[in-house]
This record gives sequence, structure tokens and C-alpha cells, in this order.
Amino acid sequence: MRRLIFVPLLLLAAPLLADEGMWTFDNPPLTQLKEKYGFTPTREWLEHVRLSSVRFNDGGSGSFVSPDGLVLTNHHVGFGQLQKMSTAEKDYVKNGFIARSRAEEIQCADLELNVLVSVEDVTARVQGAIKAGASEKDANDQRKEAMAAIEKTSTEKTGFRSDVVSLYEGGEYWLHRYKKYTDVRLVAAPEQQAAFFGGDPDNFTYPRFDLDFAIFRAWEDGKPVKVGHWLRWSEAGAKDGELVFVSGHPGSTDRLQTLAQFRFTRDVVNPFRLKIYKQRLKALADYTARGPEEARRAKSMVFSLENAQKAVSGEQDGLLLPGLMEKKKSDEEAFRGKVAQDPSQQELHGGAWAQIEKTIEKQKSFFARAGFSTWRGSRLLSIAGQIVQMVEEVKKPNGARLREFRDSNLESLKFSLFSKAPIYADMEEVTLADAWAGALEALGPDDPFMKAVLEGRTPVEAAKAVVSGTKLHDPGLRRKLVEGGPEAVRASDDPMIVLARRADPIVRELRKRTEDEIESALTTASEQIAKARFQAYGQSVNPDATFTLRLSYGVVKGYELGSTLVPYKTTFHGLYERNAAFDNQPPFDLPARWLERKMGLELSTPYNFICTTDIIGGNSGSPVINRNAELVGLIFDGNLESLPNRFLYTEDKARAVAVHSSAILESLRRMYDIPQLADELSGKVAR
Amino acid sequence: MRRLIFVPLLLLAAPLLADEGMWTFDNPPLTQLKEKYGFTPTREWLEHVRLSSVRFNDGGSGSFVSPDGLVLTNHHVGFGQLQKMSTAEKDYVKNGFIARSRAEEIQCADLELNVLVSVEDVTARVQGAIKAGASEKDANDQRKEAMAAIEKTSTEKTGFRSDVVSLYEGGEYWLHRYKKYTDVRLVAAPEQQAAFFGGDPDNFTYPRFDLDFAIFRAWEDGKPVKVGHWLRWSEAGAKDGELVFVSGHPGSTDRLQTLAQFRFTRDVVNPFRLKIYKQRLKALADYTARGPEEARRAKSMVFSLENAQKAVSGEQDGLLLPGLMEKKKSDEEAFRGKVAQDPSQQELHGGAWAQIEKTIEKQKSFFARAGFSTWRGSRLLSIAGQIVQMVEEVKKPNGARLREFRDSNLESLKFSLFSKAPIYADMEEVTLADAWAGALEALGPDDPFMKAVLEGRTPVEAAKAVVSGTKLHDPGLRRKLVEGGPEAVRASDDPMIVLARRADPIVRELRKRTEDEIESALTTASEQIAKARFQAYGQSVNPDATFTLRLSYGVVKGYELGSTLVPYKTTFHGLYERNAAFDNQPPFDLPARWLERKMGLELSTPYNFICTTDIIGGNSGSPVINRNAELVGLIFDGNLESLPNRFLYTEDKARAVAVHSSAILESLRRMYDIPQLADELSGKVAR
Repeated sequence: MRRLIFVPLLLLAAPLLADEGMWTFDNPPLTQLKEKYGFTPTREWLEHVRLSSVRFNDGGSGSFVSPDGLVLTNHHVGFGQLQKMSTAEKDYVKNGFIARSRAEEIQCADLELNVLVSVEDVTARVQGAIKAGASEKDANDQRKEAMAAIEKTSTEKTGFRSDVVSLYEGGEYWLHRYKKYTDVRLVAAPEQQAAFFGGDPDNFTYPRFDLDFAIFRAWEDGKPVKVGHWLRWSEAGAKDGELVFVSGHPGSTDRLQTLAQFRFTRDVVNPFRLKIYKQRLKALADYTARGPEEARRAKSMVFSLENAQKAVSGEQDGLLLPGLMEKKKSDEEAFRGKVAQDPSQQELHGGAWAQIEKTIEKQKSFFARAGFSTWRGSRLLSIAGQIVQMVEEVKKPNGARLREFRDSNLESLKFSLFSKAPIYADMEEVTLADAWAGALEALGPDDPFMKAVLEGRTPVEAAKAVVSGTKLHDPGLRRKLVEGGPEAVRASDDPMIVLARRADPIVRELRKRTEDEIESALTTASEQIAKARFQAYGQSVNPDATFTLRLSYGVVKGYELGSTLVPYKTTFHGLYERNAAFDNQPPFDLPARWLERKMGLELSTPYNFICTTDIIGGNSGSPVINRNAELVGLIFDGNLESLPNRFLYTEDKARAVAVHSSAILESLRRMYDIPQLADELSGKVAR
Repeated sequence: MRRLIFVPLLLLAAPLLADEGMWTFDNPPLTQLKEKYGFTPTREWLEHVRLSSVRFNDGGSGSFVSPDGLVLTNHHVGFGQLQKMSTAEKDYVKNGFIARSRAEEIQCADLELNVLVSVEDVTARVQGAIKAGASEKDANDQRKEAMAAIEKTSTEKTGFRSDVVSLYEGGEYWLHRYKKYTDVRLVAAPEQQAAFFGGDPDNFTYPRFDLDFAIFRAWEDGKPVKVGHWLRWSEAGAKDGELVFVSGHPGSTDRLQTLAQFRFTRDVVNPFRLKIYKQRLKALADYTARGPEEARRAKSMVFSLENAQKAVSGEQDGLLLPGLMEKKKSDEEAFRGKVAQDPSQQELHGGAWAQIEKTIEKQKSFFARAGFSTWRGSRLLSIAGQIVQMVEEVKKPNGARLREFRDSNLESLKFSLFSKAPIYADMEEVTLADAWAGALEALGPDDPFMKAVLEGRTPVEAAKAVVSGTKLHDPGLRRKLVEGGPEAVRASDDPMIVLARRADPIVRELRKRTEDEIESALTTASEQIAKARFQAYGQSVNPDATFTLRLSYGVVKGYELGSTLVPYKTTFHGLYERNAAFDNQPPFDLPARWLERKMGLELSTPYNFICTTDIIGGNSGSPVINRNAELVGLIFDGNLESLPNRFLYTEDKARAVAVHSSAILESLRRMYDIPQLADELSGKVAR
């Protein structure tokens, strides 16, 4: 807790602080909480919340909600696993799933959960590993080597998953240790049409009416785990104006980047992404139109792409607003002005902004090549690529490998690589052909990557050949290749492996250029800016999100829109309103159960609500808790107005959107007829 | 019907015409209806709809909905009358009213209804009355004289109320004859909180949940009238995508004005209005805060002012959008280009735009003086002003009078002037003091009008003195003064009459300057532009609204907003959603009856809906009808996006908002327990 003494005194005088920040648990915003809300979380409160928080390693958040290892998250976080366990005959995505006993709980194919058990500041060790006078490239290598070594030592010593992460754009490095759970079972999930009512049109929209929850259970040694920390459930749930917290794993924000980086995102990165999403969605729409089974298979990928498309569009809209860029410009000018006033700072760090600009110019020259020359577009191709690379990488010293193959990560990587989750060849052909068609359009037929993968064929022909020929659907084969090492991989005539071998030198070359010429220079410059920022503003600045555990705070609160008011919550009435207003037409249709049993629900039950807590993608599934650390809601979205918060936090109209804790209990009791599960959650019985 | 042959042939080729236009019944958009909707209304259809349509002379629309003279309109159109018949003890505004027999129906204080029985083109007579070489001022006088004469002759000959109105900004003049009803009785009105649920925030908002209807009955000779034409009620009501019509009395639009006039509205008129609304609302908020009875007294005025403020704000937002002004500019340039190409047109009409610009410059020089030097701010003052002027005016020849005192209008004017509706002195003091304070701020203490009304006192002192001293609350005194003529008025020592006498020369002088210098020049120039427009575009242009009967058409249709969808209708579920979402807090609270009897309603009943029909203020209470001329809904609002339609029609997101016909029947049957009234409306029984 040493960080607290650095909170600058001037903050004490600020009359109304914004509810900004995704704070690390070792540096919570105590001043803001005390000044604005009269609340000071104790060390025990913080530890309890941290140990109740769960990371879903495929990209979301969750929390323990019972002593017997029940984990609450969003339906859309569990969506991938639901899809993997579903078949044409048993469609848990469409029909939902309720385990009526522990024996009925279904094991997930490849879901890894993490709980952050301890953190350690390793900034000095990482930054100290860089030899005086090292080039940027060498510094980058030395930094990674140091991180891999720290992780390996920790893993060996503690047995915990150990990750070194950079905070404040390189200003600090922290070692995070996680308890892992890999036997995770599905307990309950609503029908997707209840969880994601309103579909893509209502995504990132509020008022909202989504029962976006799923319940899993962590098992260990064939038994549900007994956890020491879990969140008590508030039956009353979130109230208007109440102080609430969100404990979760926001994926990434870019607020500490420079103006030049904002412009690069706006002018290059986002247009690149949006084009890919659009083309892939078009390809999947054609595939979906083939029939209901194809539609079922594509569902979670379509959801992910539509979700990404809408999120990036909203972020891009923010970047295109003059106000946001102007604010960034004036903030940066003020910061650079402070640096310039201090000759020593100016000498040490003043050149960093120009260095970033120069590096970005270089990055532009091969951005598209680097972006397309990867294992994109197919799960089978990415499996092949990982196998081809892994067998070579693991022979190298730990610190010299491509970072995902470091010793401390191998277990998690193999857990995913050897997953038995189904892969649909017909869909793989479609997405891989689309990925290569997009690459071909951007890079042209003479590009080395295109030559390696296409060998003169069209994208459709090439994709068909490798997907129909490969045997990598079989996890046993993947394991055999990995265990057989370079010889086995070299000897393989599996067409996907052959293709990956052919493309690997090009993929590696572009990755190396990106790391040696771009990443290294950006890291050095960003680290300088981070140091200058600490000098200028102290630790009052909160770090950008990095998919590590963070604490946000805020209030449950409506807002003004146009000239009217948006309420802080919705109720089941609103679900039926929107369903009836659109005459039960998709995406506003409801499962038959919901139409038949409507009158069994207390329709005024709070359903969704909003709060000013600072969140972003990765926070999905995060618990919303009150001062007593009781669960009052479940984050599942931000409104459209919150999307530019990636670059600049605002709380005038930006809101996090959550499922109300009452709605989950009400639906379990009166819609899904499983009151015992509601009772287990609410602590009425220990099931 | 002679107008139909003028529809230009080029329209026949247009692929998709907008649903634009408030068309006169003699020039309905037959081509558009046929091309786009395959529908051709017959002459009988048009006559039936026209004779079923009712004008509420205090500013709204309505329709006959039973053979026994039931008239359907909006609650907010009837609001003024409800307020006038309410007392502290019997608050029909708050509690609503249901007459359970005809004997219980309550007579309105001063409501006049008009039904348009015939129209006649008198363009030649009005324009022909202007003598060759007449100055603009003389032309203006001659025009008005001709209009008054036509009206008087018609009234004497037919007994009908007869009004000559100008269409196409002076391009045509039409004589309208109305059957009048002055014994109008209240039959049913919901509680205001059901009719105007969501209050000012939700006004001009959609989705919407308002039961904004009221039912009156026209009586004559002590009996309900038997009408020959009334609209049959559609129990099923409006359906998605259906062609619908609105027959009503849009107040005014400005689409045919010039760019210079748009700028004048944007830069001078609207800011002037908005400032007045804001100040008056502030004064009334202070008054309202005094207690519940004051709040009750102020309610309808507060509603009117808030409504006007929001409407004008929305219109002003449209004028401030670059797109609208640019479109106007390019449209006007194209039109002027056409005129310039034809030397004869250019010589006749080409100077009109410059003439308007010049006139507006002159108008600016005394706009504030003319605007403030009136009987604004108090009903008692406007009564005194009318009396002082009337006794002088009626001595003059009919054609030479201030226009409202023309013979054909005197009966309606006296009906209103001698109304027994209550006037609240305490509120009058507040509003009059506010009006004079605003005037004083704008004009300064040395202005002649300010000197005349204040005589050195503060606005508060002056208002208190005249309001507390006057006896004009008594309609008998008003009648005595009018009947006593100039002598009686001159002899009166009633302080309000004395003040009006003192101010009258100044009020008249500014009105005369406005008529002689501004109105005359604008009318001449606008008439030239109208002639040039007919020459360039034929009669395909629809005339601006003038509070005369018009027919609009369009479809029931949702729209996209942001990245989501807005449904074509709402249901009762949405009412309870919004009520619950705001925890039953004002303005989203519901009367106890609505909370207690919720489950008696079929909650999925369509409640409000939207359509693309072209409407504006004055259309409130207009019936929405289908191809069979059956009533499927009741216009009560436009959405925010429709407000700039005053200047330029759009239908991308602009929508008219209506109460669904089913909702009215459902509420009468199951909320208000008066199924017999629902049956009378739906034709199930002749009550």
C-alpha cells in the first residue's frame, strides 16, 4: 500500500472528481473515494474483493458467488464455451441450459479461470536488466529476457501462473501470480435470445433488456472447489445514486498514448480493422444463409465480429469528434510544456514524442504486410502455426523465445492447443478464404506471404485444399506433433502443417521487424514519457488497462439525452415492451417460455441498470458490488457514449450497463424453475 | 377539383416521392398517392373526411367520431377548457373526468368548434381589388378591404363563419366557410398524468406513452347534434407499414419563405421568443412554488410555455444545422436561376428577394418595440385592450378596421371576450410584471410604451396596481363597456381600462408601422415570388400551413436512431416500464388508479405509434385514418427530429406521434369502466 502517500495534495481541493480510472488493487483511489463518497475500503475489503474476482482467460471477467465455487459471468463471455459444447441436436446457445444437479453440470472444452493471488513490483528488476548503452532492439530483448526469467522463477517457486505485465506504458512492471482453474463446468445459461435480446442493434445501447448472465462452477480433483472468498449476493440489488465498484479485467485502453498514436489509430489501425470485420461478416452471412446448422455454427463468431465492429466504430466516432482530439492535443501540450520547463527532464525525456512520431511513420510502411502475414482467418491454421513455431522455440533459452512460448506460459498454451472443442471445416474454408482474399487485395499476388500460402491458387482454392486435407481436427495429432518435436513437424505431410512451415519464415520476419524496429522504440519512448509523467503528475494518473485485475468506482445514475431523461434502471416491463413494439420479430423475439410465462414474473423487477464506473471490453462479467462488497449487479456492456472512453474518460452520458442482481434471482425462480440455485446464490441455503 | 390537371408530368417519373405536404382538400396529392401507394381517394372520400374534421378554435384539431356529435381531440387541446372548468375542489385536470350520462357532460366556457363546409377561390377578387399603381401600403389596405367585404357578404348570405385566407404566401386567396359550434361539452378526459405522462422531458420524444385524448360533444339547441359525417373507429387500429392520412389544421410552416426570412427567424425572432418563454417560465415556477393551488392555476400556462419553448428550440436547432440552411440556399439559387432565365419573369418578379431583404432590415430597427408594445402578459390587459380598440374600430367602415374587428369575426371575438372562465388575479400580477420587466430590459424606461404602462412605477408595482384595481374579472362589466361604446370606455375609471387607453396610441402606431411598412412590402414581394414559383414549378408545391384544413399522408413506420431501431409503436408495457424505471417519480408517476388496475389491462395493447405524415403544431387532435377513412389513431405530437420540418420536410427520422385507436378503447373499457362509451365510439351500440 506504499503508493498512497504519493497522491498529490492538490487533489484534496478538487471539488468534484470524475469517477475515472481502472485502478490496480495496490493503488486504489482512496482520496477520491473519501472526498467524494466518504468511503474508505479497508485492506481486508480489498483483499476479499480481489480474491473473489475471476479472470476468464478467453477474454472476460467473473466472480465467485458461492463457497462451492459458483462463478458468475456474462452469457456472452461463456458464449464461446456454450458454442463448443453444443451440437445440432443439443443447442445450448439457442435453448439455454440448467443443471438441476451437480452431476448434470457440463465440463467446458478449454476454459481456464485465473484468480489473482499476489502481485509484486518488479520494475527495478526489469528496467535494471537493460545494459547501459544498449540499443533499443537490445534493450527490448533484455527486457523480455528479464520478464521471462522472473516469471519462470516464480512459477517454479510458487506453482502459480506468473505473468509480468507493464503498467503506465512501461513506467512500471509488476509480477502477477494467479491460481488457475481448468476444470470449469456450466451450471446455468439463459437462452441466447433472452441473454442478448435486441441483438446487434441494441448492443452498446441503453435502455437495455438483457439477461446476460451465465453461471459456471470451478471444480478441482473431481469436486467443486471450496473457496475462501466469494461475493455475497444482494437481493435488493443496485439502488439509484448508490456508490458501486466494479472489480474486473479491462482489456486495454489507450489514454496514455500520445497524440501521434491517437492519429495512427484513427487513420490507419481502425480503418484496417473495420474493413476486415465488414468483409468477414459478409462472408459469414453468406455461410449462415446456407442453412440452420451453418447459422448455429457461425453464431458465436458472428457475435464476436459484430461486437468488435460496433465497439471499434464507436471508438472511431470518438476519435473523429473534434472535441476529443482537441482535448488530447491541449493535454499533451500542457504536459510537454511542464517537461520543457525542467531542463533535466527535457534532456532525459523531451525527445520521446518525436521518437514515437518517427517510429509510427516507419510502422506505416509495413503495417498492412505485418497485419496480414499471420495465422489469421482459421483456427486450424493458427493451430498449425503454433505447432510449427513451438517445436522450434522451446529449444531456445527461455528468455530468447517468442514471448507466448516462454516456459511459464506453456501449460496454458497447451491447454488451449489440445482442446477437444469442435472445429467446423466448412466454416473454416469460408473464413480462411476470406482472410486470404482480403490479404491478397491489400498486398497483391507477388507478396511473399501471399505466394507462400496461395502458391498460385485463388484464396478459395487454397483454403479448400488445406482445410479439407488437414487432420489437425484431431487433438491427438496436435499433441503427437508437439511431442515429436521439430523432426515430427518437418516430417509431417499434413497440408496445413506444410503450409505453415512454408509461411513461417515470412511470419517470423515481419514479427521480428515489428518487435525490433517498432515495439522496441515505442517501449523506450513510452517509458520515458511515463517517467516524465510521474515527475509531473505523481501517481494520481491511473494506468491504462492491460487485462489485469482493476477496481473501478462510480454511482448508479441516469442521464440526459437530447432533451429527455434516461432512467438508471429498466425492468422486465421494458423487455416485454420492446418485444411487443416490434411484434416479436427478430432480433426482438423471445423464446416461447418467456412469452408463455410472462405473467409469472414480477414485471417491475429491476432488470438492467447503469453506473458511471470506468470499464471497457474485458470487463464483461465483472461483478458490480456495493460498499459492503455485496453483489448488486453484473457488468455486461457500455452504452454507445462510453466507447470513446478508450481514449478519454467522460461521465456526462457514458455509462457501464449491468444486469441487476434481482433480475437473475427472479428469472431463476420464476422463469427457469430452479429456486434452489437462486437460494444458493442468495445464501438462503448452502446447496 | 380543377387543380388536379396542373400536376406536372415530370412527377410521374419520380421513383420515390417523399410523404411531404399539408395539402388543401381541393388540391390533394393524387399523383403521389397513386404512384407510391396505388390509392386514389374519391371525391366522396375527400368530402366525408373534410366534413368529419373539426377545428378547435383555440388552436387544435379534432374529428367527429359518432353520429351524436362526439368529438375526439387531444387532452392537451382540451387542457385550457379543463383548466377553466376546474376549481381547487374539482380538479378535472389532475383527476380526469368521465360523464356517465349525457346529463353529466360539462359545458365549456368558451370553446368554439368549426367545420369546413365549403371553400371558394377568391384570388382574382382579392388581387383584382388592388388598383393599378397603388403603393404597397395602399395595396395592403385594398387587399384587406376586399377580404373583409368578401367575408361579410358570405356571412350574411350563408350564415356560416367566413374567412378569407392567403395560401402560397399570397399566391392565392380562398374563402373558407365554417359551421360553428359554441355549445361544446366535456365527455371524457384522462388524468393529466396519464395523458401527458413523462411531462416536459418526454414532450416531442418517442418512444412515447401518452393517453393524450379527450372527448367532447357538440350540442345545439340543448341537444347533442346529429352529424351527417363522422369517422368510423378501427378497433384494430394502425398497422406497421400501413398507408395513413391525417386530416387537421396545421398552424403554420415557413417552407416557402426566402433564405433571408429563415435567417431573420434564426437570428432575431427565435432568440426573442426563447428569451420570453424562459423568463415567463421562471416567473411561473416561483408562483407555482407558493402552494398546490397556485400550481394548479398555473398548470395549463406552464404547459403551453414549455411546449412552445421546446418546439421553438427544436426548430432553432434545425436552423442552426448547416445542412438545412445550405439546402435552402441551393434550392433558392436554383429557383432564382430559373426566374433569371426568363426575361419577362425576371422583370416582373426578380426583384422580390431583394425587396424582402430590405424590408427585413427595416423590420429589425423596431422589432423589439413592436414585439413588446402589445397587450402581452395578462388576460385582463388583453381584454381591456380589445375593449378599448373595439369600441373605436366598429365605428369605422368594415374594410378599414384592424382585421380582427371585421364584421364577420365579431361574433367569435365576443364569444371569447365575454367568457366566464376564471381569471386568477394573483397569477395575472406575476405574468404581467414579468412581461413588463422583460420589455423594460429591452426597451429602457424612456420608451413611450414603458412610460405609458409604468408611469414611473416598477413593473411589479404597476402590475399590482392595475390587476388589484380592475373589475374586468366580471364578464358583465366587459359587455357593458362594449355596449356602452366609446363614451362608456372613455368614462371608465377602471385602472386596466385607463392604462389600455393610455397605451393604445402607441400600440396602434407600432402595429400600423408594421402593417404599412413591413407586412405590405412582404406581401407584395411574396406574392411575386409565389407567381414566379407557379410559373417555374406549377402547383406541385404544397402551400405553407395556415391553420386551415389540410390532408397529409404517409406510412406507419419506425426508424433507425444511432445504431439501433425505434419501433413503429409502443404498448402499455412501455408505460409501466418507464414508470417503474423512474421509481414512480414525477414526471413519470402514474395516478393511483393506473397502478392499482395495471393487471386489468391487456398490457400488449398498442399504445402510441408513429408515421411519416407531414404535420405541425395545430395538428394536435387530428384523426389518423386509413384508406377506408376509419380512425386508426390520434395525432398528438411530433418527435424532436420533426421540429425542423417547419422549414424543410424530411422523413428519414422525422415522425408524427399518435395515440393508437385500440389504446383509447382499452382504457375506457378496463381502466375507466365506461365500456358504453367505448361501444359508442366503436359503433357497437348507438348510445
